[in-house]
Amino acid sequence: MKFSFKNDYSEGCHPNILQTLLQHNLDQQAGYGEDQYSLQAKELIKTKINKKDSDIYFVSGGTQANLIVISSVLKPYQCAVSASTGHILNNETGAIESTGHKILSIGTEDGKLRPSDILPVLENHSNVPHQVMPKMVYISNSTELGTIYQAKELEELSQFCKENSLYLFMDGARLGHGLTAEISDLTLEKVAELTDIFYLGGTKNGALIGEAIVINNPALQEDFAFNIKQKGALLAKGRLLGIQFLELMKNDLYFELAKHANQQAMKIKQALQEKGIQFLSDTYTNQIFPILSNDLIQILSENFEFYVWKKIDEEFSAIRLITSWSTSDDAVNRFIEIIREEL
Amino acid sequence: MKFSFKNDYSEGCHPNILQTLLQHNLDQQAGYGEDQYSLQAKELIKTKINKKDSDIYFVSGGTQANLIVISSVLKPYQCAVSASTGHILNNETGAIESTGHKILSIGTEDGKLRPSDILPVLENHSNVPHQVMPKMVYISNSTELGTIYQAKELEELSQFCKENSLYLFMDGARLGHGLTAEISDLTLEKVAELTDIFYLGGTKNGALIGEAIVINNPALQEDFAFNIKQKGALLAKGRLLGIQFLELMKNDLYFELAKHANQQAMKIKQALQEKGIQFLSDTYTNQIFPILSNDLIQILSENFEFYVWKKIDEEFSAIRLITSWSTSDDAVNRFIEIIREEL
Amino acid sequence: MKFSFKNDYSEGCHPNILQTLLQHNLDQQAGYGEDQYSLQAKELIKTKINKKDSDIYFVSGGTQANLIVISSVLKPYQCAVSASTGHILNNETGAIESTGHKILSIGTEDGKLRPSDILPVLENHSNVPHQVMPKMVYISNSTELGTIYQAKELEELSQFCKENSLYLFMDGARLGHGLTAEISDLTLEKVAELTDIFYLGGTKNGALIGEAIVINNPALQEDFAFNIKQKGALLAKGRLLGIQFLELMKNDLYFELAKHANQQAMKIKQALQEKGIQFLSDTYTNQIFPILSNDLIQILSENFEFYVWKKIDEEFSAIRLITSWSTSDDAVNRFIEIIREEL
Amino acid sequence: MKFSFKNDYSEGCHPNILQTLLQHNLDQQAGYGEDQYSLQAKELIKTKINKKDSDIYFVSGGTQANLIVISSVLKPYQCAVSASTGHILNNETGAIESTGHKILSIGTEDGKLRPSDILPVLENHSNVPHQVMPKMVYISNSTELGTIYQAKELEELSQFCKENSLYLFMDGARLGHGLTAEISDLTLEKVAELTDIFYLGGTKNGALIGEAIVINNPALQEDFAFNIKQKGALLAKGRLLGIQFLELMKNDLYFELAKHANQQAMKIKQALQEKGIQFLSDTYTNQIFPILSNDLIQILSENFEFYVWKKIDEEFSAIRLITSWSTSDDAVNRFIEIIREEL
Repeated sequence: MKFSFKNDYSEGCHPNILQTLLQHNLDQQAGYGEDQYSLQAKELIKTKINKKDSDIYFVSGGTQANLIVISSVLKPYQCAVSASTGHILNNETGAIESTGHKILSIGTEDGKLRPSDILPVLENHSNVPHQVMPKMVYISNSTELGTIYQAKELEELSQFCKENSLYLFMDGARLGHGLTAEISDLTLEKVAELTDIFYLGGTKNGALIGEAIVINNPALQEDFAFNIKQKGALLAKGRLLGIQFLELMKNDLYFELAKHANQQAMKIKQALQEKGIQFLSDTYTNQIFPILSNDLIQILSENFEFYVWKKIDEEFSAIRLITSWSTSDDAVNRFIEIIREEL
Repeated sequence: MKFSFKNDYSEGCHPNILQTLLQHNLDQQAGYGEDQYSLQAKELIKTKINKKDSDIYFVSGGTQANLIVISSVLKPYQCAVSASTGHILNNETGAIESTGHKILSIGTEDGKLRPSDILPVLENHSNVPHQVMPKMVYISNSTELGTIYQAKELEELSQFCKENSLYLFMDGARLGHGLTAEISDLTLEKVAELTDIFYLGGTKNGALIGEAIVINNPALQEDFAFNIKQKGALLAKGRLLGIQFLELMKNDLYFELAKHANQQAMKIKQALQEKGIQFLSDTYTNQIFPILSNDLIQILSENFEFYVWKKIDEEFSAIRLITSWSTSDDAVNRFIEIIREEL
Repeated sequence: MKFSFKNDYSEGCHPNILQTLLQHNLDQQAGYGEDQYSLQAKELIKTKINKKDSDIYFVSGGTQANLIVISSVLKPYQCAVSASTGHILNNETGAIESTGHKILSIGTEDGKLRPSDILPVLENHSNVPHQVMPKMVYISNSTELGTIYQAKELEELSQFCKENSLYLFMDGARLGHGLTAEISDLTLEKVAELTDIFYLGGTKNGALIGEAIVINNPALQEDFAFNIKQKGALLAKGRLLGIQFLELMKNDLYFELAKHANQQAMKIKQALQEKGIQFLSDTYTNQIFPILSNDLIQILSENFEFYVWKKIDEEFSAIRLITSWSTSDDAVNRFIEIIREEL
Repeated sequence: MKFSFKNDYSEGCHPNILQTLLQHNLDQQAGYGEDQYSLQAKELIKTKINKKDSDIYFVSGGTQANLIVISSVLKPYQCAVSASTGHILNNETGAIESTGHKILSIGTEDGKLRPSDILPVLENHSNVPHQVMPKMVYISNSTELGTIYQAKELEELSQFCKENSLYLFMDGARLGHGLTAEISDLTLEKVAELTDIFYLGGTKNGALIGEAIVINNPALQEDFAFNIKQKGALLAKGRLLGIQFLELMKNDLYFELAKHANQQAMKIKQALQEKGIQFLSDTYTNQIFPILSNDLIQILSENFEFYVWKKIDEEFSAIRLITSWSTSDDAVNRFIEIIREEL
């Protein structure tokens, strides 16, 4: 069977999680997130972000987190703005619009948003009351293109949002990868300080399911649990989410796993760079987009699974390789070996 | 710590499930429900319902299943009808209405709907186009009151729905318990034959999460997957759901677990009946509602957790006891012992 | 052609309105409610309610007003409560639910809500976050049954709402009739003082279209115009609404028209009472519900149109008669004459 | 007071309409669109489009028509595609998204959509079920930029839609202007033949309010009236809409009025062209976008109202001039006169 670099959710979860599920399996616990594991996990996250007053909720997946956050934060006539590559724009079957909210798309090269990208959108949406009111800036870290926000960039964006009465929401489906990228100077604490709301993605970083929504802005905390329930996201056996985040946050396993994924991608990146291969974007996380000849892509695809991302010209295409918390050295080395043989 | 009879989701899951999760943990699988476990589990269910043409989708929980099914089946101006005790009416934070659909409530004694209950509602909603159009009958088996549908009752209801162009949707959060009640003459195969759509509940019967939506009516099958994704219910690691249903359906473990839960409840019921205790409703599933003196309730509550369901008079109240797939003989015996001591 | 007592919107509008439309027909005006007539009409209403800080918006009809108000006021998990006879519950094709909000129905005899009716509903909806949160009390004056709120009743309800953090919303589709009922001690000024939001109905009281939404609670005023536009209710030629309300509010024409409608109904009521006829409810507005023999109903229906409202027994039924701002003495007298002849 | 070229809804309505409203003002009519005027107007339109099986509904305005049509036609996971200039994308406060549906924007120069514009969007939305399903093509004729569809263009688009299972919906807020443009070879009959659904706009062509939705595709006709009511668009006094469309369609007044508006715009266009003025787009309807020096714009704005549409460079900007059914020769001549004086 071919090894897959298609995504970071091909395997199960970190073994510690299953171990703890097994260990406490027959303990009786309160339902709906009131179990002791969920409560402990929330405390642990609050400690790590250094914000005791944040509210934390666990949900199953990224689309679910996005739709709950956005629909609970915005009034009916308000909308979110997103980079044109945003997951909410292209990969969620209209989940956000299904809750009644428009998303304004902003074309950017690298999947990131800067104040200068957003300002014209605000200016073009001032014909009250004939246009939606932009009220939330949606960003991802790392982005869909594997790029990341540095501390200064997030500070500027946060400042801009405050000045313009916009909420700043960070989709952290791959937040671990973003923060542990070798070049990143952003920290989890800083993310909590600079955003109104964000989430820590578990599904793509060693959990079976699970995203931890962190609400930092007190104005957005009121009655949030109702939204979780109403959207069908409140698990009866909340222990499943609690235990996962407890294990992931303990001893910073979460960040170790992400760092591992990044490092495996960087090994491949380096091997490719040594051969003079170009990339679609310069990434330092677990997604890389090398531009390869169709012949080489053909050879690689006989041994590995991955997505052909974008046709560059008749002869070349960019592929997307994603590594995960469980990508083995063996798989990485085999990939590099073929590259070295063929180039 | 007190043993809890509050619900059937206090414990984790059947050990086979964790065992299989562990065994296949590092296998790479396709995402979003295309993993081999999900595919096998679906085939197994189709075999058991003897309907090869039904479509099956796994989602995380009951509210999620209900809101996806109802919002995908109904047109904007159509509504569901439900017994006044229906879970969708009282316990889902307006999840159905949140997708745009009204639910018409029909008062019934035992939580069940019969054609004679529904007919007047149809007659009172004929002022086109000023009223919503009833288009779906929502029932639960077992119901919120622990009662069940017998084969003949479901046949009559199904027939009535066909004659009146109504879809019949069975909430099967506790379908295992309904079908394995000692008095039940309804089978899973029959349920699939008589309903347009139903689900097999896992969460309350030995899974960590999971309900299996079964779409029997071909007209309701088209493009259903889009709805799953749009509502945030499509798990990236679908294996989590697939493995659970695979284990539960293998060797009819699902029905064994439900039968166990029912039997534990029936033991308590019998012990209470022997002491002349009355019940709020005459149930044969894993929910019983004995009417006890407040003194006795006080004594029991020192040893067990359960809900006081309804005040009967100054001296007596009905309590709700729920047993589960994992309720031990020990817990049941201790409860019975106290009853016998005190009465 | 038979004269119709079926409703109060069978005719066009008060001639003053058409006269003014004609007079200013070719004047150029700003669009979307910024025309001078709309601005003047709003000022006039503010003067009459003695609340300079209220915000006023004109929309076309009652269902539109209801859905805009409710969807703009409530958060996604909040719901309205209504008397079981409420227009929003039975006669708007699920318009409110279509915007995502549940309505809890409260059975009452006379179509009115009192604190004692609402309190149990609040108590039964305290299972956070598994149930919708009641947040708005919806009432109508006059009600669907023609009954009215007196000043003391509205004061008590308003007080109760304040104490329980509920918004009080009055559907005033027939507010003119409610306030000019001979027994009414409630005033328009008092309505504005005691409600968070209400509307003055034009459609059923001499306008072609038009309801004037009055927002008294400053917290509900912010950005309201966006909701009007988003729901498709912002007329390009706002003059049509502005001129109508300007004419209706001038010299209290609005109240004169409503009083006329009430008086015509009361004449019929008196004639029926003199003959010993019973009524379904004791109303003082433009709706009456006499209980007549089927034979008499047959005779009347040969000369008039009206709805048979409710079967009482094999021999008797209640009919509904509605009079309007334009119901002539002649029609009323002919009806009375037949009554006197036949009884 | 300055004459306004800002829009085509500054004045009231064609005098015939007020005359007929006056004449029949006190006639009693059935409510909710069952009045005789509405019924006659619908028959007249069916005759003119030569489609006896089309269904026709009158609503108040364009945003209302758009949101009702789109939300009734699409399933929850389906979306519309629109030219980036589309009214539904930019000028309706997210009304379409508010009903749960995404709109995919397609950048085009002239506000029109061709098969070659749409095909790539279909190709980029094939990742089932992770993306919305494009199901409707939304176009306007004339467009927001004043451009029009010729018969051949609409035929090709219609053919493309059929081949790709897409519904074709034409926003006809300015359909009269589109069809009576001097260069247009498209007819109303042809529009009805080639679209699944479209509307005839009254508000911008001589009515006080009113758009006539015409449903040609039988699959889209079922139960449509429920949607009208649910969205708050069903007027109690439907006569207001019926009489307007009856008067407009009689003797083709509708087309005469549109032609007048177009001609007034063309007079100005010609005068500007004679002076060598360039235009933002080459239009033949009642909207023109001349590119003028800021100095000239300043002078014109002292005498007329209009929108400055787009900055071209430091010295020049495009303005938008809109003429209407009631734009007088005098206003046009005064405008031309100033142009001639100043250039």
